[in-house]
Amino acid sequence: MTPLNPALAATFPPPVMEARRWLEGISFPPARPLINVSQAAPVDPPPRALREVLADAALNRPEAHLYGPVLGNADLRRALAESWQRFYDAEVDATGVAITQGCNQAFCAAIATLAGAGDEVIIPVPWYFNHKMWLDMQGITAVPLPCGADMVPRAADAAARITSRSRAIVLVSPNNPTGAEYPAATLAEFHDLARQHGLALILDETYRDFDSRSGPPHRLLAGGVDDTLIQLYSFSKAFRLTGHRVGAVIASPARLAEMEKFLDTVAISTGQIGQIGAEWGLRNLGGWLADERRAILDRRAGMLRAAAQMPGWRVVSSGAYFAWLEHPFEMPSDDLARELVRQAAVLMLPGTMFMPQGQGQRHLRVAFANVDGPALMRMAERIADFSGQSLP
Amino acid sequence: MTPLNPALAATFPPPVMEARRWLEGISFPPARPLINVSQAAPVDPPPRALREVLADAALNRPEAHLYGPVLGNADLRRALAESWQRFYDAEVDATGVAITQGCNQAFCAAIATLAGAGDEVIIPVPWYFNHKMWLDMQGITAVPLPCGADMVPRAADAAARITSRSRAIVLVSPNNPTGAEYPAATLAEFHDLARQHGLALILDETYRDFDSRSGPPHRLLAGGVDDTLIQLYSFSKAFRLTGHRVGAVIASPARLAEMEKFLDTVAISTGQIGQIGAEWGLRNLGGWLADERRAILDRRAGMLRAAAQMPGWRVVSSGAYFAWLEHPFEMPSDDLARELVRQAAVLMLPGTMFMPQGQGQRHLRVAFANVDGPALMRMAERIADFSGQSLP
Repeated sequence: MTPLNPALAATFPPPVMEARRWLEGISFPPARPLINVSQAAPVDPPPRALREVLADAALNRPEAHLYGPVLGNADLRRALAESWQRFYDAEVDATGVAITQGCNQAFCAAIATLAGAGDEVIIPVPWYFNHKMWLDMQGITAVPLPCGADMVPRAADAAARITSRSRAIVLVSPNNPTGAEYPAATLAEFHDLARQHGLALILDETYRDFDSRSGPPHRLLAGGVDDTLIQLYSFSKAFRLTGHRVGAVIASPARLAEMEKFLDTVAISTGQIGQIGAEWGLRNLGGWLADERRAILDRRAGMLRAAAQMPGWRVVSSGAYFAWLEHPFEMPSDDLARELVRQAAVLMLPGTMFMPQGQGQRHLRVAFANVDGPALMRMAERIADFSGQSLP
Repeated sequence: MTPLNPALAATFPPPVMEARRWLEGISFPPARPLINVSQAAPVDPPPRALREVLADAALNRPEAHLYGPVLGNADLRRALAESWQRFYDAEVDATGVAITQGCNQAFCAAIATLAGAGDEVIIPVPWYFNHKMWLDMQGITAVPLPCGADMVPRAADAAARITSRSRAIVLVSPNNPTGAEYPAATLAEFHDLARQHGLALILDETYRDFDSRSGPPHRLLAGGVDDTLIQLYSFSKAFRLTGHRVGAVIASPARLAEMEKFLDTVAISTGQIGQIGAEWGLRNLGGWLADERRAILDRRAGMLRAAAQMPGWRVVSSGAYFAWLEHPFEMPSDDLARELVRQAAVLMLPGTMFMPQGQGQRHLRVAFANVDGPALMRMAERIADFSGQSLP
């Protein structure tokens, strides 16, 4: 047998792939198709005007097929900095922006600059599973931080978990999987805490564009980009560019210079077509994105109406693409999720996928962004039927 | 100050970025433009027929904008397996192929499954710098393996360097930076050695399509994909898709299942447009690629003719995109490379970029693939002039 890195062997396999396997061998009749509320990403292509830009670049722009700079194309870095200036009313310039092959990679690059095997990173529970996987495969200890009943973590609870091996605190807002929108005051407290202890605060704002609150969700950039805050962003959701893999990180130029080593080695550069699309989107799709946000907020309202029809279920939190539901059954959520596929033709992800071993058995994540109001109501009806069959 | 991972801090910065900085502030008159022999990648876009396929996909294929499977699109994995079957006369099917965001990432994913901090990986010197960088930032010890005078490493020399911490041997053939084409017998000896000691043999064949030898360069797949061999491949060179970031790894399905964890976390999936192009290229660009290979072989011959005009210089090895040259000057190669930019308007990479500290001072890498015969001869003339000025 050839060697197997024990840290990678101990890392759990991709949950999304596992959930996809639950669908294998099950046929859903046309009259009762699967209602898939497992997907944390758009399922429709970008608007036609953006697709035309991409097609034109592929055909007519030679540089669309060549390597770009490791930290991203200059025009995209500038456009994102300008967008950040407007949105956060902050001093950010292109030297504080790097482009990555998707936002997952931005997280990996950020952590790579901060921590190695044996170090600790504090992350709220439930977590985004790819964050946990990266920490595990790097031999970094993920220190779980429980949330309050509102699914918002507290800086004071994090403070109690800081040790000499702590390197960073990771927050995701709006949160995946819970949808919780962290209050500005909470984020400010975490920022202060991280600064006091010489830790980094990684703030993943992948779902920022679908926050229900208007205006900037925090003031962490009021003093400009500092050495504490590392923000992560994704173009996948805003402009439906998932298949092009474009994310971003906003951090101090010194931090980005360290990330450049990681990105050069793992990526060389981010795909050009995706960067061209993201840049065009930032300059031209502001109004379109505002409409998208309104549509998602409508679906959130539809989700809440639907959940009210699901006997014994409770919405713990919701926001952006997600609702975090408590279910009324005796069975653990991973068994329940499989039963819901088989009996109700509904695919949700179980809370167990987002929490340490043995936790998350009472909860499921509903990603409602791709499902309209009537389908959400059909989902509720199916679950009510399922409850009738299965409740004791 | 926020934390800095010491392993990343100790990793050297991207050499290509450093070389690019040497050009800053220097203007090259139109009559004497820079001759850039630093680039290990095509500088022209793909053929128009392929660009049309990409443009059509961007406009008309919704799935071109969505996430794909973590290990790559099924049709591309199948097409590459079939190409492998034909080229290596080997039993490889799609379950033994994974697609990555470029070949660098394939290397990172392969190593991630094999080794962690404190382990050892044997790599010939000179090395491909991104390989060394990944090992450094992961805290893995790169054990340098000197090559023979022909720039080919010997399995017996590797055997003497195997310890209880050894996890893999990494070979690149045709080699970057030396161009050396490793003989089939050498590769077989390394394969046997790795198998005997329970190590992995990583064989990076990024430049395979430009090997001067006809037919398969080795018979390592004669017994099918085993658990020892991990092959890496790149579509960037074959179809000029550098800006789309598409690479591949050929390994046992068990190994790929471990890599899937890494790829899901770092990439989620490879860009769709690039995969669509690579698949089309494999099916339609065989003849075009054969012409490309002939053109590169012509340039290699032109490089050898040019080098014969460079007083005191010696071609140590050459192949694929590269020649490895010994220079006649007293100054170290990194100083010389900068002088050649300033005085001769020629950009080569110094041997110091590919070797441990203090080594490589007598050598430079010439990447001739983007430079035609007349330009290579002009390069030789400029260097002869430079020699006249600078030789003592």
